Amino acid sequence: MDKMEKIVALAKRRGFVFQTSEIYGGLSNSYDYGPMGSELLRNIRNLWWSEFIHKREDMVGLDSSIILHPQTWVASGHVGSFSDPLVEDVKTHKRYRADHIIEAFLPDDSGVIVEDMSIEEMGQFIQENKVKSPEGNDLTPPKAFNLLFETEIGSVANDKSKVYLRGETAQGIFTNFKQVLDSTRVQLPFGIGQIGKSFRNEITTGQFIFRTLEFEQAEIEYFFNPNESNWEDILSNWKDGMWNFVTKVLGINEEHVRWRQHTDKERSHYSKDTYDLDYQFPFGWKELWGVAYRTDYDLKQHIEHSKTNLEYLDPKTNKKFVPHVIEPAVGVNRLFLMVLADAYTEDPETGRVVLKLDPKLAPYTACISPLLANKEELVTKAKELFNSMKSKYHLVWDARGNIGKRYAAQDEIGTPFCVVVDFQTLTDNTVTVRDRDTGEQERVAISELSQYINDRVEKSA
Amino acid sequence: MDKMEKIVALAKRRGFVFQTSEIYGGLSNSYDYGPMGSELLRNIRNLWWSEFIHKREDMVGLDSSIILHPQTWVASGHVGSFSDPLVEDVKTHKRYRADHIIEAFLPDDSGVIVEDMSIEEMGQFIQENKVKSPEGNDLTPPKAFNLLFETEIGSVANDKSKVYLRGETAQGIFTNFKQVLDSTRVQLPFGIGQIGKSFRNEITTGQFIFRTLEFEQAEIEYFFNPNESNWEDILSNWKDGMWNFVTKVLGINEEHVRWRQHTDKERSHYSKDTYDLDYQFPFGWKELWGVAYRTDYDLKQHIEHSKTNLEYLDPKTNKKFVPHVIEPAVGVNRLFLMVLADAYTEDPETGRVVLKLDPKLAPYTACISPLLANKEELVTKAKELFNSMKSKYHLVWDARGNIGKRYAAQDEIGTPFCVVVDFQTLTDNTVTVRDRDTGEQERVAISELSQYINDRVEKSA
Repeated sequence: MDKMEKIVALAKRRGFVFQTSEIYGGLSNSYDYGPMGSELLRNIRNLWWSEFIHKREDMVGLDSSIILHPQTWVASGHVGSFSDPLVEDVKTHKRYRADHIIEAFLPDDSGVIVEDMSIEEMGQFIQENKVKSPEGNDLTPPKAFNLLFETEIGSVANDKSKVYLRGETAQGIFTNFKQVLDSTRVQLPFGIGQIGKSFRNEITTGQFIFRTLEFEQAEIEYFFNPNESNWEDILSNWKDGMWNFVTKVLGINEEHVRWRQHTDKERSHYSKDTYDLDYQFPFGWKELWGVAYRTDYDLKQHIEHSKTNLEYLDPKTNKKFVPHVIEPAVGVNRLFLMVLADAYTEDPETGRVVLKLDPKLAPYTACISPLLANKEELVTKAKELFNSMKSKYHLVWDARGNIGKRYAAQDEIGTPFCVVVDFQTLTDNTVTVRDRDTGEQERVAISELSQYINDRVEKSA
Repeated sequence: MDKMEKIVALAKRRGFVFQTSEIYGGLSNSYDYGPMGSELLRNIRNLWWSEFIHKREDMVGLDSSIILHPQTWVASGHVGSFSDPLVEDVKTHKRYRADHIIEAFLPDDSGVIVEDMSIEEMGQFIQENKVKSPEGNDLTPPKAFNLLFETEIGSVANDKSKVYLRGETAQGIFTNFKQVLDSTRVQLPFGIGQIGKSFRNEITTGQFIFRTLEFEQAEIEYFFNPNESNWEDILSNWKDGMWNFVTKVLGINEEHVRWRQHTDKERSHYSKDTYDLDYQFPFGWKELWGVAYRTDYDLKQHIEHSKTNLEYLDPKTNKKFVPHVIEPAVGVNRLFLMVLADAYTEDPETGRVVLKLDPKLAPYTACISPLLANKEELVTKAKELFNSMKSKYHLVWDARGNIGKRYAAQDEIGTPFCVVVDFQTLTDNTVTVRDRDTGEQERVAISELSQYINDRVEKSA
């Protein structure tokens, strides 16, 4: 098994990530987060919110709907041009991305840049080269397949009832820009951030949770006056914040992260500069987090389509203008996969797997257990300890007989501390605390345990 | 304005709740949560998770997808019978619920129980009584309109690509039951809880966020062996937990909450007992939180449709059986509306509005400000204080000149403490702390401020 397969297996075995609807044969590119995964997701979300919304006085949060007014997606350009070039196997009716099919067909040294091909050129290439589907059948000419999921709301019977699941959370920020201005005391520069699910009807290449139909985004739109603030400085400031979050807050190895500036060709036409923060996933360097200077493009699009004035009134100059925006946007599921990949370690000799998660991220901060499950006084004492600490930390109770199995299980889910109540505890009120990463044990007084754990968790911060 | 209108106005004015896509004329029965609302939602979610997942050793969390395998909804019965009886105005093509139209048509003392009418009987009633739409036009005969939102996933072109947005989060728990058993050490009785968005294509009656197309649920399935555990005890225990959460954790007035047992007729055929925890909303007593004993109905449905064995192997008896389940299910948006309604107070003389939120729920725990915004030494000192506390509490900075306006704004968003740095601060390192509910001010040493706030927040817990 390669590393990615091992991570997928661990994620399933220990309740981090399950295939969606597995009992019904699964659903392509869809995943559910199990007991450990849901805790890890929460910790990532809460740290993001704390870092970027709570600790900054120039940021506010938002939680907008998944189903927005359909004009939103006309204004944003998603209805017109948010599409993949799809071909269909004429026999199996399975659909594929034409660009992926052509890339797989081409030898590595072909020099052909598929991204530069128009949809007509792709069709021509497939025809001329008699490119087949992976099943060996003919393919239909490529068609642009819109990535927005469509659905209908039921209150009216005509065309207007067609709506879309949002393709990104960002548009909910732009459409609420005026409401936020009118209801709070924000002044430029300031940002609005939100976390939520988005949906893209993509034909994915199956890299686990890296790219899925349904995914979770954490996006920020940071608004500013381009005549007062230097956009390079703001962009640089957000790049620092992103880097700090990944390497310091989430504790990711700096060597696995890098910046990549978009080329002129790659960048959207309205963007003046765009960077990707890439992570070295087991399947290669891939985009984790993008930050783009989008000028005043988005607000102007919404002004045009909604006929609403979304200008900002500068309290100093009393002049109105459309703010510019810098957008740091990350996929929460990619952060999750990065965290798993970076924490995964395996002893080359014993094969023992340890998930070396930052203590702030671990699903459980500590495991509490009695040395022996059949000694009532140990169980009672351990339960007391559990109950005294459960409001402060997320704890797991484990009273299975084999202490080696306990430790192995906790190592695999990344629990930093295993606390054991033994016979000595009954006489001197101390417990053993085993460290996940070193395997070493220390005796700690119960009265000092909470502080001990707190110090260790804080130290990681 | 009645109380409900005042709450809606406050929610908009202060950034709690906005109409979705307001700049595009809005979207019916859809709302976005603004800077204050997104914080209040987070606090409610986090308290629910802490209380029901983290503090209980018999509970684990989950985060399943919104788009599940479509067979899930066949098994659950949603595809077959999750529908509203709809009629359409023949001229405007607006749709209405037939039962609502008939209820509005009937005099209060008619004695007719519309819920007992079949869809054919409703049609007959409308025809015989010549019932018109609210616009005065004829109505079509009622048709069953399924409440599940449909959409399509794009990887295959045939029928199988039709999927639904989940109508409840609960089914994701049942379909992952086996995965949770296989990946964790849970033993009966235990529960799985999750929070997430669900969607119902309802024709609603417009009670603000009480019933919306897109909403957020917090659902628990608590599994047990009916031969070992007494279901009345488990149900009673969950009722206590729900009551405690509402009245103690969220701090709601006990007089505004009541239990209502479902009648035999009202209860689902598979349920042995069901209770609603009702809250006295400004528009009447309405269901807040339901708890139902659903027997082994759901798991058996999924066993039948998936042909997968979802039995539990009892480690003591070594026998297999299908667990029974008790389901406490609440709408997060209803908790939100309840919290707003219960906290809303208005001085009958001055009209001054104060949102008396429990301090744990308030969007900001404290407002930090300099007495005068143009005195640099005050601003510097206040900023220092802000920065020293921002990692621990969510703070808001307010330096506007008029201190009365500051207090009024903070009262309306429910900030429990307003901390002001004044000239005395510069000499003795004390600040004034104003209490939201009493309006009284105390001088507190900066060195003791964090503890002072902590004590007050904890006291509310």
